[in-house]
Amino acid sequence: MKTVAALLDDMFEDVEYSQPAGAFTAAGHRVVTVGMKRGKTVTGKAHGTPVTIEVPVSDARVRDFDALFIPGGYSPDRLRAHPEPVAFVREFVLSGKPVLGICHAAQLLITAQVITGRRITGYVSIIQDIKYAGAEFVDEPVVEDGNLVFSRDPRDIPAFIAASLKKLGD
Amino acid sequence: MKTVAALLDDMFEDVEYSQPAGAFTAAGHRVVTVGMKRGKTVTGKAHGTPVTIEVPVSDARVRDFDALFIPGGYSPDRLRAHPEPVAFVREFVLSGKPVLGICHAAQLLITAQVITGRRITGYVSIIQDIKYAGAEFVDEPVVEDGNLVFSRDPRDIPAFIAASLKKLGD
Repeated sequence: MKTVAALLDDMFEDVEYSQPAGAFTAAGHRVVTVGMKRGKTVTGKAHGTPVTIEVPVSDARVRDFDALFIPGGYSPDRLRAHPEPVAFVREFVLSGKPVLGICHAAQLLITAQVITGRRITGYVSIIQDIKYAGAEFVDEPVVEDGNLVFSRDPRDIPAFIAASLKKLGD
Repeated sequence: MKTVAALLDDMFEDVEYSQPAGAFTAAGHRVVTVGMKRGKTVTGKAHGTPVTIEVPVSDARVRDFDALFIPGGYSPDRLRAHPEPVAFVREFVLSGKPVLGICHAAQLLITAQVITGRRITGYVSIIQDIKYAGAEFVDEPVVEDGNLVFSRDPRDIPAFIAASLKKLGD
Protein backbone atom coordinates (compact mmCIF):
# COMPACT_ATOMS: atom_id res chain seq x y z
CA MET A 1 0.00 0.00 0.00
CA LYS A 2 1.61 3.22 -1.18
CA THR A 3 1.31 6.89 -0.21
CA VAL A 4 0.68 9.05 -3.26
CA ALA A 5 1.12 12.84 -3.30
CA ALA A 6 -1.54 14.44 -5.55
CA LEU A 7 -0.22 17.87 -6.59
CA LEU A 8 -3.12 20.23 -7.22
CA ASP A 9 -4.19 23.82 -7.60
CA ASP A 10 -7.35 25.53 -8.86
CA MET A 11 -8.59 24.67 -12.35
CA PHE A 12 -7.45 21.06 -12.32
CA GLU A 13 -9.31 18.84 -14.80
CA ASP A 14 -11.92 17.33 -12.49
CA VAL A 15 -12.04 13.77 -13.81
CA GLU A 16 -8.26 13.59 -14.20
CA TYR A 17 -8.03 13.95 -10.42
CA SER A 18 -11.18 12.28 -9.14
CA GLN A 19 -11.13 9.07 -11.21
CA PRO A 20 -7.45 8.10 -10.69
CA ALA A 21 -7.52 9.21 -7.04
CA GLY A 22 -10.65 7.12 -6.50
CA ALA A 23 -9.05 4.11 -8.17
CA PHE A 24 -5.83 4.47 -6.16
CA THR A 25 -7.81 4.66 -2.91
CA ALA A 26 -10.03 1.72 -3.88
CA ALA A 27 -6.87 -0.32 -4.47
CA GLY A 28 -5.76 0.40 -0.90
CA HIS A 29 -3.32 3.23 -1.56
CA ARG A 30 -3.40 6.52 0.35
CA VAL A 31 -3.77 9.76 -1.64
CA VAL A 32 -2.52 12.93 0.09
CA THR A 33 -3.35 16.26 -1.53
CA VAL A 34 -0.40 18.67 -1.84
CA GLY A 35 -0.80 22.29 -2.94
CA MET A 36 0.12 25.88 -2.30
CA LYS A 37 -1.61 26.31 1.07
CA ARG A 38 -2.79 23.91 3.81
CA GLY A 39 -6.57 23.85 4.18
CA LYS A 40 -7.25 25.72 0.95
CA THR A 41 -10.09 24.27 -1.08
CA VAL A 42 -9.13 24.15 -4.74
CA THR A 43 -11.76 23.56 -7.41
CA GLY A 44 -11.88 21.78 -10.74
CA LYS A 45 -12.11 23.64 -14.04
CA ALA A 46 -15.04 21.81 -15.62
CA HIS A 47 -17.29 20.90 -12.70
CA GLY A 48 -15.97 22.85 -9.72
CA THR A 49 -15.09 19.65 -7.82
CA PRO A 50 -13.79 20.82 -4.42
CA VAL A 51 -10.57 19.32 -3.03
CA THR A 52 -8.96 20.42 0.22
CA ILE A 53 -5.16 20.68 0.32
CA GLU A 54 -3.71 18.60 3.16
CA VAL A 55 0.01 19.37 2.85
CA PRO A 56 1.54 22.65 1.64
CA VAL A 57 4.16 21.92 -1.00
CA SER A 58 6.69 24.02 0.93
CA ASP A 59 6.47 21.40 3.72
CA ALA A 60 6.20 18.35 1.46
CA ARG A 61 9.23 16.03 1.39
CA VAL A 62 9.80 13.43 -1.29
CA ARG A 63 10.87 10.92 1.38
CA ASP A 64 7.33 11.00 2.85
CA PHE A 65 5.73 9.73 -0.37
CA ASP A 66 6.03 6.67 -2.59
CA ALA A 67 4.71 8.34 -5.76
CA LEU A 68 3.66 11.70 -7.24
CA PHE A 69 0.39 12.13 -9.16
CA ILE A 70 -0.17 15.28 -11.24
CA PRO A 71 -3.65 15.81 -12.75
CA GLY A 72 -4.01 18.16 -15.72
CA GLY A 73 -6.20 21.11 -16.62
CA TYR A 74 -4.67 24.50 -15.82
CA SER A 75 -3.48 23.45 -12.36
CA PRO A 76 0.05 22.57 -13.58
CA ASP A 77 0.46 25.97 -15.28
CA ARG A 78 -0.68 27.74 -12.11
CA LEU A 79 1.68 25.70 -9.93
CA ARG A 80 4.73 26.25 -12.14
CA ALA A 81 4.48 30.00 -11.58
CA HIS A 82 5.91 29.27 -8.09
CA PRO A 83 9.36 27.86 -7.21
CA GLU A 84 8.23 25.40 -4.48
CA PRO A 85 6.08 23.06 -6.61
CA VAL A 86 8.68 23.15 -9.39
CA ALA A 87 11.42 22.13 -6.92
CA PHE A 88 9.20 19.37 -5.47
CA VAL A 89 8.48 17.94 -8.94
CA ARG A 90 12.14 18.16 -9.88
CA GLU A 91 13.26 16.26 -6.78
CA PHE A 92 10.52 13.65 -7.27
CA VAL A 93 11.43 12.94 -10.88
CA LEU A 94 15.13 12.70 -10.03
CA SER A 95 14.40 10.42 -7.03
CA GLY A 96 13.33 7.61 -9.36
CA LYS A 97 10.00 7.17 -7.53
CA PRO A 98 6.91 6.89 -9.78
CA VAL A 99 5.60 10.15 -11.26
CA LEU A 100 2.10 9.74 -12.74
CA GLY A 101 0.94 12.63 -14.91
CA ILE A 102 -1.82 13.37 -17.40
CA CYS A 103 -2.76 16.16 -19.84
CA HIS A 104 -0.88 19.39 -18.91
CA ALA A 105 1.15 17.66 -16.15
CA ALA A 106 4.31 17.62 -18.27
CA GLN A 107 4.38 21.45 -18.10
CA LEU A 108 5.63 21.14 -14.53
CA LEU A 109 8.40 18.77 -15.63
CA ILE A 110 9.41 21.16 -18.42
CA THR A 111 9.74 24.07 -15.99
CA ALA A 112 11.62 21.73 -13.60
CA GLN A 113 13.99 20.93 -16.49
CA VAL A 114 13.77 17.18 -16.01
CA ILE A 115 12.35 15.81 -19.28
CA THR A 116 15.25 16.23 -21.67
CA GLY A 117 15.97 12.84 -23.21
CA ARG A 118 12.83 11.22 -21.77
CA ARG A 119 9.90 9.63 -23.66
CA ILE A 120 6.65 11.27 -22.58
CA THR A 121 3.19 12.29 -23.71
CA GLY A 122 0.74 15.08 -22.90
CA TYR A 123 -2.16 17.19 -24.10
CA VAL A 124 -2.08 18.22 -27.76
CA SER A 125 -1.47 21.90 -26.91
CA ILE A 126 1.88 21.17 -25.22
CA ILE A 127 3.39 18.86 -27.86
CA GLN A 128 5.78 21.50 -29.21
CA ASP A 129 6.80 22.52 -25.66
CA ILE A 130 7.72 18.88 -24.97
CA LYS A 131 9.73 18.64 -28.18
CA TYR A 132 11.57 21.92 -27.57
CA ALA A 133 12.45 20.65 -24.08
CA GLY A 134 14.40 17.85 -25.73
CA ALA A 135 11.99 15.03 -24.89
CA GLU A 136 10.49 12.51 -27.29
CA PHE A 137 6.74 13.10 -27.64
CA VAL A 138 4.85 9.82 -28.09
CA ASP A 139 1.22 9.94 -29.26
CA GLU A 140 -0.13 6.97 -27.27
CA PRO A 141 -2.68 6.60 -24.42
CA VAL A 142 0.03 5.77 -21.87
CA VAL A 143 3.75 6.33 -22.22
CA GLU A 144 6.08 4.77 -19.65
CA ASP A 145 9.74 5.68 -19.39
CA GLY A 146 11.49 4.56 -16.23
CA ASN A 147 9.61 6.14 -13.33
CA LEU A 148 7.38 8.29 -15.58
CA VAL A 149 3.81 7.19 -16.44
CA PHE A 150 2.08 9.79 -18.62
CA SER A 151 -1.17 10.10 -20.56
CA ARG A 152 -2.63 12.65 -23.01
CA ASP A 153 -6.15 13.63 -21.91
CA PRO A 154 -9.39 12.42 -20.25
CA ARG A 155 -9.97 9.76 -22.95
CA ASP A 156 -6.86 8.00 -21.66
CA ILE A 157 -7.96 7.82 -18.00
CA PRO A 158 -8.77 4.06 -17.96
CA ALA A 159 -5.36 3.21 -19.49
CA PHE A 160 -3.67 5.74 -17.18
CA ILE A 161 -5.27 4.18 -14.10
CA ALA A 162 -4.29 0.65 -15.17
CA ALA A 163 -0.66 1.61 -15.85
CA SER A 164 -0.45 3.70 -12.66
CA LEU A 165 -1.81 0.91 -10.46
CA LYS A 166 0.65 -1.52 -12.01
CA LYS A 167 3.52 0.92 -11.34
CA LEU A 168 2.36 1.45 -7.73
CA GLY A 169 2.26 -2.33 -7.27
CA ASP A 170 5.84 -2.87 -8.43
CA MET B 1 -5.99 53.99 -38.74
CA LYS B 2 -5.20 50.28 -38.63
CA THR B 3 -7.27 47.11 -38.58
CA VAL B 4 -6.21 44.85 -35.70
CA ALA B 5 -7.15 41.15 -35.45
CA ALA B 6 -7.74 40.21 -31.80
CA LEU B 7 -7.30 36.43 -31.52
CA LEU B 8 -9.44 35.07 -28.70
CA ASP B 9 -11.03 32.02 -27.17
CA ASP B 10 -12.67 31.27 -23.83
CA MET B 11 -10.73 31.99 -20.62
CA PHE B 12 -8.85 35.00 -21.97
CA GLU B 13 -7.54 37.32 -19.27
CA ASP B 14 -10.32 39.92 -19.24
CA VAL B 15 -8.31 43.10 -18.73
CA GLU B 16 -5.60 41.97 -21.16
CA TYR B 17 -8.24 42.10 -23.89
CA SER B 18 -10.58 44.87 -22.79
CA GLN B 19 -8.05 47.56 -21.86
CA PRO B 20 -5.77 47.34 -24.93
CA ALA B 21 -8.76 46.84 -27.27
CA GLY B 22 -10.43 49.89 -25.73
CA ALA B 23 -7.27 51.94 -26.12
CA PHE B 24 -6.77 50.85 -29.74
CA THR B 25 -10.37 51.77 -30.58
CA ALA B 26 -10.13 55.09 -28.74
CA ALA B 27 -7.06 55.90 -30.84
CA GLY B 28 -9.11 55.35 -34.00
CA HIS B 29 -8.04 51.83 -34.88
CA ARG B 30 -10.50 49.05 -35.68
CA VAL B 31 -10.38 45.87 -33.59
CA VAL B 32 -11.85 42.74 -35.22
CA THR B 33 -12.33 39.65 -33.05
CA VAL B 34 -11.03 36.41 -34.58
CA GLY B 35 -11.69 33.00 -33.02
CA MET B 36 -12.72 29.43 -33.61
CA LYS B 37 -16.34 30.07 -34.67
CA ARG B 38 -18.22 33.08 -36.07
CA GLY B 39 -20.86 34.42 -33.68
CA LYS B 40 -19.61 32.44 -30.69
CA THR B 41 -19.49 34.43 -27.47
CA VAL B 42 -16.26 33.71 -25.63
CA THR B 43 -15.84 34.75 -22.01
CA GLY B 44 -12.99 35.99 -19.85
CA LYS B 45 -11.41 33.84 -17.14
CA ALA B 46 -11.55 36.30 -14.23
CA HIS B 47 -14.73 38.30 -14.81
CA GLY B 48 -16.63 36.45 -17.55
CA THR B 49 -16.37 39.43 -19.92
CA PRO B 50 -18.33 38.40 -23.03
CA VAL B 51 -16.80 38.95 -26.48
CA THR B 52 -18.45 37.84 -29.72
CA ILE B 53 -16.21 36.38 -32.42
CA GLU B 54 -16.62 38.25 -35.73
CA VAL B 55 -14.31 36.29 -38.03
CA PRO B 56 -13.55 32.55 -37.81
CA VAL B 57 -9.82 32.01 -37.90
CA SER B 58 -10.27 29.48 -40.73
CA ASP B 59 -11.53 32.40 -42.89
CA ALA B 60 -9.09 35.01 -41.56
CA ARG B 61 -6.40 36.19 -43.97
CA VAL B 62 -3.29 38.07 -42.90
CA ARG B 63 -3.70 40.45 -45.85
CA ASP B 64 -6.99 41.72 -44.38
CA PHE B 65 -5.30 42.99 -41.17
CA ASP B 66 -2.55 45.42 -40.28
CA ALA B 67 -1.67 43.84 -36.93
CA LEU B 68 -2.39 40.85 -34.68
CA PHE B 69 -3.24 41.24 -30.98
CA ILE B 70 -3.14 38.18 -28.69
CA PRO B 71 -4.43 38.60 -25.11
CA GLY B 72 -3.33 36.11 -22.45
CA GLY B 73 -5.06 33.94 -19.89
CA TYR B 74 -5.75 30.37 -21.03
CA SER B 75 -7.10 31.46 -24.41
CA PRO B 76 -3.72 30.96 -26.17
CA ASP B 77 -3.38 27.41 -24.82
CA ARG B 78 -6.91 26.56 -25.96
CA LEU B 79 -6.29 28.02 -29.42
CA ARG B 80 -2.99 26.21 -29.97
CA ALA B 81 -4.78 22.87 -29.65
CA HIS B 82 -6.09 23.57 -33.18
CA PRO B 83 -4.08 23.89 -36.43
CA GLU B 84 -5.92 26.93 -37.88
CA PRO B 85 -5.01 29.52 -35.20
CA VAL B 86 -1.44 28.20 -35.10
CA ALA B 87 -1.13 28.61 -38.90
CA PHE B 88 -2.65 32.12 -38.73
CA VAL B 89 -0.20 33.20 -36.02
CA ARG B 90 2.71 31.67 -37.90
CA GLU B 91 1.84 33.50 -41.11
CA PHE B 92 1.31 36.78 -39.22
CA VAL B 93 4.66 36.64 -37.45
CA LEU B 94 6.46 35.77 -40.69
CA SER B 95 4.64 38.58 -42.57
CA GLY B 96 6.51 41.22 -40.59
CA LYS B 97 3.28 42.98 -39.59
CA PRO B 98 3.02 43.91 -35.88
CA VAL B 99 2.17 41.10 -33.47
CA LEU B 100 1.16 42.41 -30.03
CA GLY B 101 1.01 39.77 -27.29
CA ILE B 102 0.79 39.65 -23.51
CA CYS B 103 1.01 37.00 -20.76
CA HIS B 104 0.48 33.50 -22.26
CA ALA B 105 0.38 34.83 -25.85
CA ALA B 106 3.87 33.53 -26.64
CA GLN B 107 2.56 29.96 -26.25
CA LEU B 108 0.92 30.35 -29.67
CA LEU B 109 4.22 31.51 -31.20
CA ILE B 110 6.04 28.55 -29.63
CA THR B 111 3.58 26.07 -31.14
CA ALA B 112 3.84 27.97 -34.45
CA GLN B 113 7.63 27.54 -34.22
CA VAL B 114 8.38 31.19 -34.93
CA ILE B 115 10.23 32.47 -31.86
CA THR B 116 13.61 30.78 -32.19
CA GLY B 117 16.26 33.50 -32.11
CA ARG B 118 13.79 36.24 -31.13
CA ARG B 119 13.80 38.42 -27.98
CA ILE B 120 10.46 38.11 -26.20
CA THR B 121 8.74 38.12 -22.82
CA GLY B 122 5.72 36.44 -21.26
CA TYR B 123 4.05 35.22 -18.08
CA VAL B 124 6.35 33.71 -15.44
CA SER B 125 4.93 30.21 -15.95
CA ILE B 126 6.09 30.04 -19.58
CA ILE B 127 9.65 31.33 -19.14
CA GLN B 128 11.25 27.90 -19.52
CA ASP B 129 9.06 27.11 -22.56
CA ILE B 130 10.33 30.31 -24.19
CA LYS B 131 13.95 29.42 -23.43
CA TYR B 132 13.61 25.85 -24.69
CA ALA B 133 12.11 27.24 -27.90
CA GLY B 134 15.41 28.99 -28.54
CA ALA B 135 14.22 32.52 -27.83
CA GLU B 136 15.80 35.03 -25.46
CA PHE B 137 13.48 35.67 -22.49
CA VAL B 138 13.69 39.27 -21.30
CA ASP B 139 12.18 40.18 -17.91
CA GLU B 140 10.89 43.68 -18.77
CA PRO B 141 7.42 45.26 -18.99
CA VAL B 142 7.57 45.50 -22.79
CA VAL B 143 9.99 43.73 -25.10
CA GLU B 144 10.14 44.77 -28.75
CA ASP B 145 11.97 42.77 -31.39
CA GLY B 146 11.21 43.69 -34.96
CA ASN B 147 7.46 43.24 -35.43
CA LEU B 148 6.96 41.65 -31.99
CA VAL B 149 5.67 43.72 -29.04
CA PHE B 150 5.27 41.53 -25.92
CA SER B 151 4.49 42.03 -22.23
CA ARG B 152 4.47 39.78 -19.15
CA ASP B 153 1.16 40.17 -17.27
CA PRO B 154 -1.65 42.59 -16.33
CA ARG B 155 0.75 44.89 -14.42
CA ASP B 156 2.38 45.69 -17.76
CA ILE B 157 -0.84 46.73 -19.54
CA PRO B 158 -0.15 50.52 -19.53
CA ALA B 159 3.33 49.99 -21.01
CA PHE B 160 1.95 47.39 -23.43
CA ILE B 161 -0.72 49.81 -24.67
CA ALA B 162 1.80 52.64 -25.12
CA ALA B 163 4.25 50.47 -27.07
CA SER B 164 1.47 48.90 -29.14
CA LEU B 165 -0.05 52.26 -30.10
CA LYS B 166 3.39 53.50 -31.11
CA LYS B 167 3.93 50.38 -33.26
CA LEU B 168 0.47 50.79 -34.86
CA GLY B 169 1.33 54.40 -35.64
CA ASP B 170 4.56 53.59 -37.47
